[in-house]
Amino acid sequence: MEICIVLFDDFETLDIFGPIEILARCAEHKLSYYSVKGGQVKSAQGTIIQTDQIENIPKGGTLVLPGGRGTRVLINDCVFLALIKAAAEKSKYCMSICTGSSLFAKAGVLDGKRATSNKKAFEWAMSTSDKVSWIKKARWVVDGNCYTSSGVSAGMDMALGFVADLYGQNEAEKIAEDIEYIWNQDKDNDPFS
Amino acid sequence: MEICIVLFDDFETLDIFGPIEILARCAEHKLSYYSVKGGQVKSAQGTIIQTDQIENIPKGGTLVLPGGRGTRVLINDCVFLALIKAAAEKSKYCMSICTGSSLFAKAGVLDGKRATSNKKAFEWAMSTSDKVSWIKKARWVVDGNCYTSSGVSAGMDMALGFVADLYGQNEAEKIAEDIEYIWNQDKDNDPFS
Repeated sequence: MEICIVLFDDFETLDIFGPIEILARCAEHKLSYYSVKGGQVKSAQGTIIQTDQIENIPKGGTLVLPGGRGTRVLINDCVFLALIKAAAEKSKYCMSICTGSSLFAKAGVLDGKRATSNKKAFEWAMSTSDKVSWIKKARWVVDGNCYTSSGVSAGMDMALGFVADLYGQNEAEKIAEDIEYIWNQDKDNDPFS
Repeated sequence: MEICIVLFDDFETLDIFGPIEILARCAEHKLSYYSVKGGQVKSAQGTIIQTDQIENIPKGGTLVLPGGRGTRVLINDCVFLALIKAAAEKSKYCMSICTGSSLFAKAGVLDGKRATSNKKAFEWAMSTSDKVSWIKKARWVVDGNCYTSSGVSAGMDMALGFVADLYGQNEAEKIAEDIEYIWNQDKDNDPFS
């Protein structure tokens, strides 16, 4: 399965590189990076990443969307939101970290679903869609094929939860052990809400 | 202070992007990426990052070195090791994550110092230098100006420890809270040794 990571300028670095460290360790996964125009994208922490064009996202993969201050601009970008909606519709799973869920919400991907977001930006997240059932106390939330996590580091706990759901608890525990990560396994255990 | 991150092909992604998420949040820090030749470097998880040439590392910064399977080749690369030694000598602090400490060790940067490494590659790490006092049970080790961490995720706990040492405990706790990270604050608390 292809893990299709959509980046944009001023995305939050760890939102992506925590989860991909985990997702890349599954033999079933191939990772690829996309952006609206393709080419180089710069994170909020100044890291420059090479990407392909978003139209090239294949069917049947997992779409991954980070948060970060870049979301504040994109939340009003109709072209970006339409491209995200189209990419979500051809994906098997949708996954967001931090304020990435606001982009999914505004694009209509989370209509009628439960979701969470960064705790420091929760009011803003809620304001982006009233068609989403926003859950404040959650490390991450799963509803159907949509996974949304709380702020930044919570994405790693969710990625391990995703691995456990798809490939079993042992696989997730093995990855956590291999990367010496102290996994918060309980998605309802949210010390920051 | 410049945080000078040295990358190489097949570095472990989270080794770097965990710590830099934390280090970038200090107003005192400017982050830059370097490699032997400059240009694009590809992580073990396929992420392509843009870098500058290692000779351009300035004096007085913090040198950061990841681990990953790329270290297995570089441990025998005299040119790389000489460049790392030179960069370390002009840096105020040296910091490694995971098997990055093996490169520092082989380059002579850790001679006479205490250090740690990834727990799954600990025997190999020890074999790279007998002039280092290798500490197995440690989330991270500080000796003089050198910070070394255990595998992958331990780098985040160390980065917060580094921030606490330089700018105070409150600053580190604020960053952990902002990124919703459950910080293992005790460098001797190592659940993976």
